[in-house]
Amino acid sequence: MRFDIISVQPDLLLSPLGHSIVKRAQNKGLVEIHIHDLRQFAINKYGQVDDYAFGGGAGMVMMIEPIAKCINNLQAERTYDAVIYMTPDGETLRQPLVNRLSLLQNVIILCGHYKGVDERVRQKYITYEISIGDYVLSGGELGAAVLTDAIIRLIPGVLNDESSALTDSFQDGLLAPPVYTRPADYEGMKVPDILLSGDTPKVEQWRFEQAIARTRQRRPDLLE
Amino acid sequence: MRFDIISVQPDLLLSPLGHSIVKRAQNKGLVEIHIHDLRQFAINKYGQVDDYAFGGGAGMVMMIEPIAKCINNLQAERTYDAVIYMTPDGETLRQPLVNRLSLLQNVIILCGHYKGVDERVRQKYITYEISIGDYVLSGGELGAAVLTDAIIRLIPGVLNDESSALTDSFQDGLLAPPVYTRPADYEGMKVPDILLSGDTPKVEQWRFEQAIARTRQRRPDLLE
Repeated sequence: MRFDIISVQPDLLLSPLGHSIVKRAQNKGLVEIHIHDLRQFAINKYGQVDDYAFGGGAGMVMMIEPIAKCINNLQAERTYDAVIYMTPDGETLRQPLVNRLSLLQNVIILCGHYKGVDERVRQKYITYEISIGDYVLSGGELGAAVLTDAIIRLIPGVLNDESSALTDSFQDGLLAPPVYTRPADYEGMKVPDILLSGDTPKVEQWRFEQAIARTRQRRPDLLE
Repeated sequence: MRFDIISVQPDLLLSPLGHSIVKRAQNKGLVEIHIHDLRQFAINKYGQVDDYAFGGGAGMVMMIEPIAKCINNLQAERTYDAVIYMTPDGETLRQPLVNRLSLLQNVIILCGHYKGVDERVRQKYITYEISIGDYVLSGGELGAAVLTDAIIRLIPGVLNDESSALTDSFQDGLLAPPVYTRPADYEGMKVPDILLSGDTPKVEQWRFEQAIARTRQRRPDLLE
């Protein structure tokens, strides 16, 4: 899978996309990530990529021309399955959407910044608008890093133990049950006996019940 | 405001917390961010901080002892208003929670990794459990970066124009209206006339109507 990420803060993406599972996926040749500095497509030699909003008000707006140039260049080289814009008013990212996106081949991700992009960029180029949650960030870069990480860990061969991803929260519509590791007794706080019993079917039954109970308590909306 | 972030992947946090608004806030002395490498509190010379889950199954669990040592050290130095654990089964982060957290002074953020932390860490130390959304990431580091960024931009003096944050999506319970900048005509795609009219009250009225319309179309849940 290939990701082309367009950003005015490309340096911000370096460490999230250069470590851990995302790095391993690139080293294994399962994923290519290309970060594009939007200022290379600026409208003038000052690197301008934004301007005041028509109608006035606080905050700058990302101009259509640099973004158009960058996307046109990429689309001239290959076909993209999706051109995604990270924006707080997009569709809220949830695991089923991540699962669907993980099946794509080539994806462009445009990071919003300032007050967002000129509306005409959205009309002309964008095929998915995605929000990682109901809060405001300084830019779409963290959103792009979140989206990329969530997708990449689902690509076959990326995780060493793929069954691990299947038992994560949300994959079965339930929160994960509590987990414990050594020591069995920490300052008087003990691990539940059942987990030390070696009785695997009973352990699985306990985990399922705990997952249901935790979901009912914390996120009853997931059970509806 | 002071953030102490505990992580097994401290390098992953470097660029998100070293750029843009977050960096500027640190340079202005408004924010201190200290990243703690959990492996410095490992239980042995191999840097071990995780172990197999009691009861079996895929995935490793972060042990209580290294985390306890790190948090105890910090709490011996100062009082913390919150010890936050980033986890998919925590309370979903939304702007009102960000607003509340931005009023705190000293905060510890523990990043989950692998299958999460030993349940006893949560019982003994954690005062807030926060999820940035209903999806699974390789670790809590991106969540911590998202949370930190969202909080920091609300701290007075961080943004150059504070009125900009007040007109962001979610702050008034509405999505933001569309924005446009130059050129007024891009390949035949024109900016709405009203925005070029110079009639500020009418522009504000249009923006309000657009915000309502966009929210009704995309996120009717926000209007309930």
